[in-house]
Amino acid sequence: MIPANRALPIGVFDSGLGGLTVVKEIRRRLPGEDIIYVGDTARVPYGTKSPDTIRRYALQISFFLIQRRVKAIVVACNTVSAVALRALRSLPIPVYGVIEPGARAAILGSKSLRVGVIGTPATVGSHAYKKAIQRYAPSARVWETACPLFVPLVEEGWTDHAVTRQVARDYLKPVLAHGIDALVLGCTHYPLLKDTLGAVAGARVRLIDSAEETARDVENGLRNANALNDPERAGRSQFFVTDHPASFARLGGRFLGKGLPSARRLAFENL
Amino acid sequence: MIPANRALPIGVFDSGLGGLTVVKEIRRRLPGEDIIYVGDTARVPYGTKSPDTIRRYALQISFFLIQRRVKAIVVACNTVSAVALRALRSLPIPVYGVIEPGARAAILGSKSLRVGVIGTPATVGSHAYKKAIQRYAPSARVWETACPLFVPLVEEGWTDHAVTRQVARDYLKPVLAHGIDALVLGCTHYPLLKDTLGAVAGARVRLIDSAEETARDVENGLRNANALNDPERAGRSQFFVTDHPASFARLGGRFLGKGLPSARRLAFENL
Repeated sequence: MIPANRALPIGVFDSGLGGLTVVKEIRRRLPGEDIIYVGDTARVPYGTKSPDTIRRYALQISFFLIQRRVKAIVVACNTVSAVALRALRSLPIPVYGVIEPGARAAILGSKSLRVGVIGTPATVGSHAYKKAIQRYAPSARVWETACPLFVPLVEEGWTDHAVTRQVARDYLKPVLAHGIDALVLGCTHYPLLKDTLGAVAGARVRLIDSAEETARDVENGLRNANALNDPERAGRSQFFVTDHPASFARLGGRFLGKGLPSARRLAFENL
Repeated sequence: MIPANRALPIGVFDSGLGGLTVVKEIRRRLPGEDIIYVGDTARVPYGTKSPDTIRRYALQISFFLIQRRVKAIVVACNTVSAVALRALRSLPIPVYGVIEPGARAAILGSKSLRVGVIGTPATVGSHAYKKAIQRYAPSARVWETACPLFVPLVEEGWTDHAVTRQVARDYLKPVLAHGIDALVLGCTHYPLLKDTLGAVAGARVRLIDSAEETARDVENGLRNANALNDPERAGRSQFFVTDHPASFARLGGRFLGKGLPSARRLAFENL
């Protein structure tokens, strides 16, 4: 018999679809866990919005998840992790972000300690990755650059397209010029661009996928708190979105790596 | 002495910055009018959202404008005009959209009655332009195509960039193949891409800018209702945005064609 708190679901949220790459990794590592996912598709994208607007949205979603009785919240969005994690850490349950795990992984495998970071304007403007990386390795050199067109290109489905390759070359050029050996994909949409980014960055540059690293952090955190659910059971996932569920279901499979169960509509006015 | 209703401001709104191209044209034609502009920058873009979400946002903004006592509302957004104009026409003041004026201008100058329309996914999915054009000219042939990357490209400032030209070639190719002689720029962001779109479409294709046509409609409507303000006075504009005013002020000048007075923050929770 598993105690009640272990049996509670994990709450995961993002501005839209990108966080599903984190759900995919959590389900791979922790198949016994139930997951409640919220994608704020009516207000996506967050990355070009201001920090106080992003914090307000993140708190609204977190209150919804807490009302649904989750045992932990995973902020599966680099933008929210970058600007709102401190505010969310005042909540009465454990909150996991995607920045720390990615920063740690970048440093652990870096020989030159020269690291590139790509993300949304809000993430890059916060310098959250640079600060996190230099907490682990104060002598590390970090170059950050904003790539605001990558999210719309992924959501357009142009993950393997000449335009996307040209945009990637333009965006990465100043960062690659510094001879980095690791590039942090600082947005949960970017794992879908891994092939394109890898081709542009070259084999010498490791690509750091924060979705994988974050799932590892969640596993360790829940294990240390003795809060993992029975790994033999089959976890279930529920999906909530703030815009129409149909388009979420249509695109979501690409991020999740398999079919998406139907999502339900969530209206913040009604909370 | 101007009667009170003539002296009231005109309300104009858009999902973000694009509607400023309409403000520019209204101020050029009607320099005596005061304008209250709302840009819903915290929830931009609308064009990839569902019709019922767009209608809800449009009603919230219209209620705000009515509380501010405007004499008319101009929906300076093709997406809202396409999916929400009927809902907004139930409001107790005149409401102007951008679809009808653009459709009319496309037909008035077309010899072949073969017309292309580009817009956001929501605008194109509504077929609002096709229906409006065929109300004026039932035998007209209309080809519509969604260009979801144009708004992020404009907001990135890449209005004259090799990537934008390649995206434009990709998007326009199927429409141009039909031998159109008019192309409706069915999004208030697109006037900033006029040079690029003109180069791709060629000199044979007239570009229809709905901002100009809409301003003409507003002038005619207010004149017929005897509701034009004194043309000799200097009209003032006020700008409200739902996200941080700083980035709006930084980018807005490009759309307005001159410097932007400071914008104020508007929070819908507080209405």
